[in-house]
Amino acid sequence: MDTTHASWKHQFASDNVAAICPAVWKAMDEANHAPNSHYAIAYGQDDISRRAADQIRALFETDCDVYFVYGGTASNALALSTICDSYHGLIAHRCAHVSLDEANAPEFFTGGAKIIGVDGREGKLDIDAVLNILALGHRIHAAKVRGITITQATEAGTCYGVEEILRITSLKKRYPDLDLKVHMDGARFANAMAASPDVTPKAMTWQAGVDVLTFGATKNGAPASEAIIFFDRELATDFEWRRKQMGQLASKMRYLSSPWLGLLDQDAWLDNARHANRQAARLSNGLTALRGVELVFPTEANMAFLRMPPSLAEGLSQRGWQIFFYQWFNAYRFMCSWSTTDKAVDALLADAGDLAGA
Amino acid sequence: MDTTHASWKHQFASDNVAAICPAVWKAMDEANHAPNSHYAIAYGQDDISRRAADQIRALFETDCDVYFVYGGTASNALALSTICDSYHGLIAHRCAHVSLDEANAPEFFTGGAKIIGVDGREGKLDIDAVLNILALGHRIHAAKVRGITITQATEAGTCYGVEEILRITSLKKRYPDLDLKVHMDGARFANAMAASPDVTPKAMTWQAGVDVLTFGATKNGAPASEAIIFFDRELATDFEWRRKQMGQLASKMRYLSSPWLGLLDQDAWLDNARHANRQAARLSNGLTALRGVELVFPTEANMAFLRMPPSLAEGLSQRGWQIFFYQWFNAYRFMCSWSTTDKAVDALLADAGDLAGA
Amino acid sequence: MDTTHASWKHQFASDNVAAICPAVWKAMDEANHAPNSHYAIAYGQDDISRRAADQIRALFETDCDVYFVYGGTASNALALSTICDSYHGLIAHRCAHVSLDEANAPEFFTGGAKIIGVDGREGKLDIDAVLNILALGHRIHAAKVRGITITQATEAGTCYGVEEILRITSLKKRYPDLDLKVHMDGARFANAMAASPDVTPKAMTWQAGVDVLTFGATKNGAPASEAIIFFDRELATDFEWRRKQMGQLASKMRYLSSPWLGLLDQDAWLDNARHANRQAARLSNGLTALRGVELVFPTEANMAFLRMPPSLAEGLSQRGWQIFFYQWFNAYRFMCSWSTTDKAVDALLADAGDLAGA
Amino acid sequence: MDTTHASWKHQFASDNVAAICPAVWKAMDEANHAPNSHYAIAYGQDDISRRAADQIRALFETDCDVYFVYGGTASNALALSTICDSYHGLIAHRCAHVSLDEANAPEFFTGGAKIIGVDGREGKLDIDAVLNILALGHRIHAAKVRGITITQATEAGTCYGVEEILRITSLKKRYPDLDLKVHMDGARFANAMAASPDVTPKAMTWQAGVDVLTFGATKNGAPASEAIIFFDRELATDFEWRRKQMGQLASKMRYLSSPWLGLLDQDAWLDNARHANRQAARLSNGLTALRGVELVFPTEANMAFLRMPPSLAEGLSQRGWQIFFYQWFNAYRFMCSWSTTDKAVDALLADAGDLAGA
Repeated sequence: MDTTHASWKHQFASDNVAAICPAVWKAMDEANHAPNSHYAIAYGQDDISRRAADQIRALFETDCDVYFVYGGTASNALALSTICDSYHGLIAHRCAHVSLDEANAPEFFTGGAKIIGVDGREGKLDIDAVLNILALGHRIHAAKVRGITITQATEAGTCYGVEEILRITSLKKRYPDLDLKVHMDGARFANAMAASPDVTPKAMTWQAGVDVLTFGATKNGAPASEAIIFFDRELATDFEWRRKQMGQLASKMRYLSSPWLGLLDQDAWLDNARHANRQAARLSNGLTALRGVELVFPTEANMAFLRMPPSLAEGLSQRGWQIFFYQWFNAYRFMCSWSTTDKAVDALLADAGDLAGA
Repeated sequence: MDTTHASWKHQFASDNVAAICPAVWKAMDEANHAPNSHYAIAYGQDDISRRAADQIRALFETDCDVYFVYGGTASNALALSTICDSYHGLIAHRCAHVSLDEANAPEFFTGGAKIIGVDGREGKLDIDAVLNILALGHRIHAAKVRGITITQATEAGTCYGVEEILRITSLKKRYPDLDLKVHMDGARFANAMAASPDVTPKAMTWQAGVDVLTFGATKNGAPASEAIIFFDRELATDFEWRRKQMGQLASKMRYLSSPWLGLLDQDAWLDNARHANRQAARLSNGLTALRGVELVFPTEANMAFLRMPPSLAEGLSQRGWQIFFYQWFNAYRFMCSWSTTDKAVDALLADAGDLAGA
Repeated sequence: MDTTHASWKHQFASDNVAAICPAVWKAMDEANHAPNSHYAIAYGQDDISRRAADQIRALFETDCDVYFVYGGTASNALALSTICDSYHGLIAHRCAHVSLDEANAPEFFTGGAKIIGVDGREGKLDIDAVLNILALGHRIHAAKVRGITITQATEAGTCYGVEEILRITSLKKRYPDLDLKVHMDGARFANAMAASPDVTPKAMTWQAGVDVLTFGATKNGAPASEAIIFFDRELATDFEWRRKQMGQLASKMRYLSSPWLGLLDQDAWLDNARHANRQAARLSNGLTALRGVELVFPTEANMAFLRMPPSLAEGLSQRGWQIFFYQWFNAYRFMCSWSTTDKAVDALLADAGDLAGA
Repeated sequence: MDTTHASWKHQFASDNVAAICPAVWKAMDEANHAPNSHYAIAYGQDDISRRAADQIRALFETDCDVYFVYGGTASNALALSTICDSYHGLIAHRCAHVSLDEANAPEFFTGGAKIIGVDGREGKLDIDAVLNILALGHRIHAAKVRGITITQATEAGTCYGVEEILRITSLKKRYPDLDLKVHMDGARFANAMAASPDVTPKAMTWQAGVDVLTFGATKNGAPASEAIIFFDRELATDFEWRRKQMGQLASKMRYLSSPWLGLLDQDAWLDNARHANRQAARLSNGLTALRGVELVFPTEANMAFLRMPPSLAEGLSQRGWQIFFYQWFNAYRFMCSWSTTDKAVDALLADAGDLAGA
């Protein structure tokens, strides 16, 4: 089997295997071909980039600072570099993307800050574990804790509720000397919002005490674009230099910003996320109905974590399904995206049912 | 005048104001919409990315290591990070992009390497100035020189001949203890190749002693894509980690690699560069025919550096032409791209002739 | 009570409260006042520094590279910077000095390497925990493991046996692709050697697979001096630049090297360490004889970790004894040094006996 | 000839070849042996370190923050790390120690800040050259200038007058947006003060607009100790962590601080410096009286820069005098210290007179 080309049976491996969604493609097309777009001022001073930033400000109903960058790892690392100096510590879930999946990018972009991993159920920070760290008081011999990062939706496919976020951000007041800042890794923020129909973007973020959000478009249908959104605008001081120095200032910025116009204009971002979440739920429901298949976390966003008999996993793999085993959760991860097809979900469920001897 | 929207009169400000060229757009379209492309393995393991790398290897007729990254500053800084450790020195032209235009990105990506700026006519390194640096011998009190970087085409719009490159790379043998490596900043490598019709890509690079080339597509018609090409493959050791850590590993890599298929397939890269060079030459010829206008450097690639009477510069500006004054060369820079129109060149020349009282 | 001046009742707080020992003082005096020492070539090219390095080579019976630096944190961080690049991972005990007590110095000196903390009994790395990390195989998304560090004597006051060290260093052969290197933090190497009378320095280090040792003199009786000893001499490539860049090259090097002459000449280093270990054992034995006092780790080197009734701890503190509670081991730490007096040990034991109602 | 041992004929090579001066030795002896000093709290909380910091505050007649560190390169780099973030620029004389002699330590400690070298007569910054840099305005593409550093006494052996310093520090007000900070490298601050009998330490520093001073004791008679003195105390925020992380926190701090007690108590620091300056003047006067010997800079501090006939330089070298050719000034440098003997100066002058055929 040729593994270099992804067939439709690979679509559950990651939300990064998906193409550019139609709304984004259309916006990029316009940015490229519309008569008034053939030339655009470089480095983000163009109309499209300004409009995209304005739309994000409108979405969050506040006058935040918005910067577009290329990728998810860089957006997190850049945001954290505004919070942490080299001698600082950042509290993160032990299985957070910044802890496990960024090849020391946060350490590098901050010049050496330490990511202090703590445990927590369902991919969420355990508040007591965080308090334990904050209580240590080891002074200059240890990293000085300066930040806390949470992922929304989490790497476990769950979503923090506003109350849970508030409990974490309330630590800022409890430890005023530390001048704590809270970062939200929103690589799948759209999926979290789609899963929380009664919560507004502002309620989920700055009103809940989040200081800086990295809002992902890549997994939501863009080719590569993330927005770093500073609600605490002081963190954005000199950020333009930082973005430039760290290799994330696009010269032809309109191709990072136009995708946002496509996603935000008609709420395509929410439609895409709702679709992905719904397919993950269908898949989760269908598989957990089978003998020996067990759900590991509630399927709240666009991925399902499952334990299943080895024979089932192997069988699916033999039938061509790309099955991803996530070692830190000791479970199989099935990821859906805006482009996950009914056909694929149905076919996988049929194969699984067949193999499970249903 | 609205300065946030670039009219067609802005097209000489930079080659970054241009849109995506048709060949690249078509290749991206295929990467996104062709039936067998709807899903693609992430992080560069996909067919398109492999084919693009293979085509680059074919172009250079050698088994080099090829990595795609987002932008020009990052591609230089990443390439240099494979040459220079934190205590190393890198010899560069005082007006090189890495010296003046990257907001300390090379220093950051290398952890502190020092860029040692030397002078040289027409934007090219002066070999004697380089030798002076190498002869200093200040040992552990100073940066240990490890690399030399040259820009091709240069920031002055000139091109190194193969002989000139060889003179620089011959220093590697002359100072064997330093284990010198030579980097070529090829943000406008296409323009240099278009200006050197009798030279092959391999003759211009690895056969001339270049160890690593950063080959730009962005200024040549792509949205954002640069290829880092290691001819000295040992420099590429662990480079995948480096690229990831430094925030330049694209998850949906096909959108960084498909532009290369579009550019290389039918030699669009050379056509684009030839067009840009030709327009720069027309502009240079036309303007230098006017009273008081003086050419600063030979117009060999896609930009012309000119001195002109203040009244002329102001007049052009008043008529809406975006005129960029390049302070380090004390001259006006006119830049052309694949999309520079005959109409724009003619109109600017007409306005200039009018103003110069021709 | 004046807490800024350390009375003799503070001597169990740390081995850093001790003065310069007589043998070191004498050697420094000679370095300063002997007729042929009044002027000394700077930066380590002097006689004294060469002799000190030679004596260290003689002690380890091998042709290793020896560099003197000021302090312990810097010596570890510098040594690790020769093993780990920014994208690497270093396996360390969760309670190692490099993990907890260096305020991100290793991360800073390496440009971002990640310290991967693992558990282990008695302050020693658990080999299975190490194997678990090595087996993960998360490729470019995670730190690439490059190094393992062990502390000898450990932060728990225990000592690795040669067999235990060999078990760890054997992983180098088991994972040849990783090109693993092993560092030994020997801030209290003297205490470990004093505790292992049948083991030679070479058997404890390079013959057991250790690649680089940071050998501490500060806690052993010097004002401030550590030796970084490269058994794997390739790691020392360009190390002179690194030491200079990282602020650890002494201009008047003789004051870092003469203490080593003092310590090594008549085995003062071992005498000092034996004395400290013996006092710790006396203290440990005396205290554990009391009701409610419990030993946490075997007292093998110069410190004892004990749990005791709060009333006892408070009582000692009220009588002026500086009692240090080590939160990570949830125990009280009593540290002895070359200068710990019989009188102090006896007096503390008497007070404790009194308080424990013995 | 044995070059590893410095004879008394080496004493003009550097002020680093000198031993510890008597006043410092006495203070260290007391710190080590006085009854109330046998134990001292670690990490700078001890009496001696507090008294030394207090005496420095008294000397400068202001409530500044004082931190002791080991060496000169580190003290500069650490001080600059409080001024410059990674994307900042620092203006320095092209021949400053931070530019030429620190093997990229400032770049490393700041995470990548760029040292922007400017010219200037007699080792002093040329104010117009500085203004040219500040006027560039290249925004995010270049380093953002944040600091200016001056060396007092300069690397050319000259001294800034208060007026000259004020001219530089006045730029802080002229460019308020840059929030400029001024650092003074005072590795030979004592020599500058000795050369300026009518100026007080405060008039030379904070009253003249200096924000942070690195005040050297090493070249003035200590084994290794420098004080970083923050007049702008906001720069010292979290500095304790920085010092620790960067490997400059001494555990047995009293051996870094007691030398300051020795130097300051009876004005030994000034006596030492006056002696060194006087010997340099004698040497300068004596040599320039010879045919063909030319003074390059006024001999204001403890070193003389001279051009002389090759035959004379060779002759001196053959007679065993260590002659240091300083390539950047194209001149021979003769350096004196607190321990330079009359005998040595007389003997060198006699040999020179002999060789010059006087």
